[in-house]
Amino acid sequence: MELIERAKIRLCVDHPLGEGKTVPLDEAQAHYLFAVMRLGPGARVALFNGADGEWTAEVTEAAKKRGTLLCLGLAAPQLSPPDLWLLFAPIKKERTDFIVEKATELGCARVLPVATEFTNAGRIRQDRLQAHALEAAEQCLGTYVPEVADLEPLRKVLAGWDPARRILWADESLVGPAETLAGLAPGPWAILIGPEGGFSEAERAALRALPFVTPVSLGPRILRADTAACAAITLWQAALGDWR
Amino acid sequence: MELIERAKIRLCVDHPLGEGKTVPLDEAQAHYLFAVMRLGPGARVALFNGADGEWTAEVTEAAKKRGTLLCLGLAAPQLSPPDLWLLFAPIKKERTDFIVEKATELGCARVLPVATEFTNAGRIRQDRLQAHALEAAEQCLGTYVPEVADLEPLRKVLAGWDPARRILWADESLVGPAETLAGLAPGPWAILIGPEGGFSEAERAALRALPFVTPVSLGPRILRADTAACAAITLWQAALGDWR
Repeated sequence: MELIERAKIRLCVDHPLGEGKTVPLDEAQAHYLFAVMRLGPGARVALFNGADGEWTAEVTEAAKKRGTLLCLGLAAPQLSPPDLWLLFAPIKKERTDFIVEKATELGCARVLPVATEFTNAGRIRQDRLQAHALEAAEQCLGTYVPEVADLEPLRKVLAGWDPARRILWADESLVGPAETLAGLAPGPWAILIGPEGGFSEAERAALRALPFVTPVSLGPRILRADTAACAAITLWQAALGDWR
Repeated sequence: MELIERAKIRLCVDHPLGEGKTVPLDEAQAHYLFAVMRLGPGARVALFNGADGEWTAEVTEAAKKRGTLLCLGLAAPQLSPPDLWLLFAPIKKERTDFIVEKATELGCARVLPVATEFTNAGRIRQDRLQAHALEAAEQCLGTYVPEVADLEPLRKVLAGWDPARRILWADESLVGPAETLAGLAPGPWAILIGPEGGFSEAERAALRALPFVTPVSLGPRILRADTAACAAITLWQAALGDWR
């Protein structure tokens, strides 16, 4: 299939995309395109919705609080991530933002902040983190935005866990050679990254007792949580994900 | 060999460390330990110098502008990185800081900022980046601080390159499955990460013509330069470095 040229300005929409489809804009989107970016009728915009790929669309109506776009052609095929989730304990604001951004870029399907015993952050701004994931996808020409869940206690998340989804646990006590992940079975996985200070003894015992949890080392150095998240996603993607 | 308990406050010094050795402090170090951290005689400090491991030392003299420490015992063995350099094109300030931090944590021996045709930053603050590497090592219990070189044009760096050091080039045009690095020969390597916007056609042709350059893909997604640096170092460490 021939692809149309990609537009520079990108927008994630909650609407089906396809040949000849029109897409209505909400107030915030119309404000962004017409007031901030100063686009008018005839301008081209890249649209994606997480399912239908990236479409180049043309502005057909530009009003103050609304607008309409018409899909002209497919500009890039949909690239959804493999079925990989990231569970992480929120840390300082910038580093939490960073983890969400990197999970989006490196290809995670869902991001789940979890509160552990040594987690300092009592709450997170889920809406802000979700917006951060959206921005990362828009900036990196992505066509998929991972859902960022609300903060939940790790205990509760593990209690309701579907054992068919295996967990790759970055166990900071395993400082040493990084396991090769090549021998692990493909399928639904989640990566679990702890907070600064690691997991408590009780958490460690609980994790070790779960049959669907595989502890791994991330090398001989102590890594910050955000670095550990990047490294673990990279190793998983190269061994089991869509980087193969 | 029995290791002594590690001290919480860490200091990188430019002085040999060993059994019974005394270490003089300069004015900035004395100010940090005695004025900022409020330590006095008898307090314990972790010292490392990039070569002798981490030593627990005791304050034996605490003055306003000077001081002396006495090494009590080895607290952690030296962990030097493999012979891996990181060449990267400086980007926005926070992301440049971030690359230096991650190169330190993930285990690079040297960091070389290079100016490419599409590099925006005309200069860098080498001293600030070097301090950033030091801080990353101090915070992550590291015993090695990579040297951060001054900014040089990529052209000049490649013209004087020792061909015995191979270059793993994160070629952003190779979007697709990530190569497995398992087949590459160990030895001295450098990773080369481009700026936003990638390399120019002339640069790409020059890199392709160099026999010591191996282009690699980092998966099917477009990654920011800082993400690409983390991913490439991780893959190299797992295949050829000290994460094996």
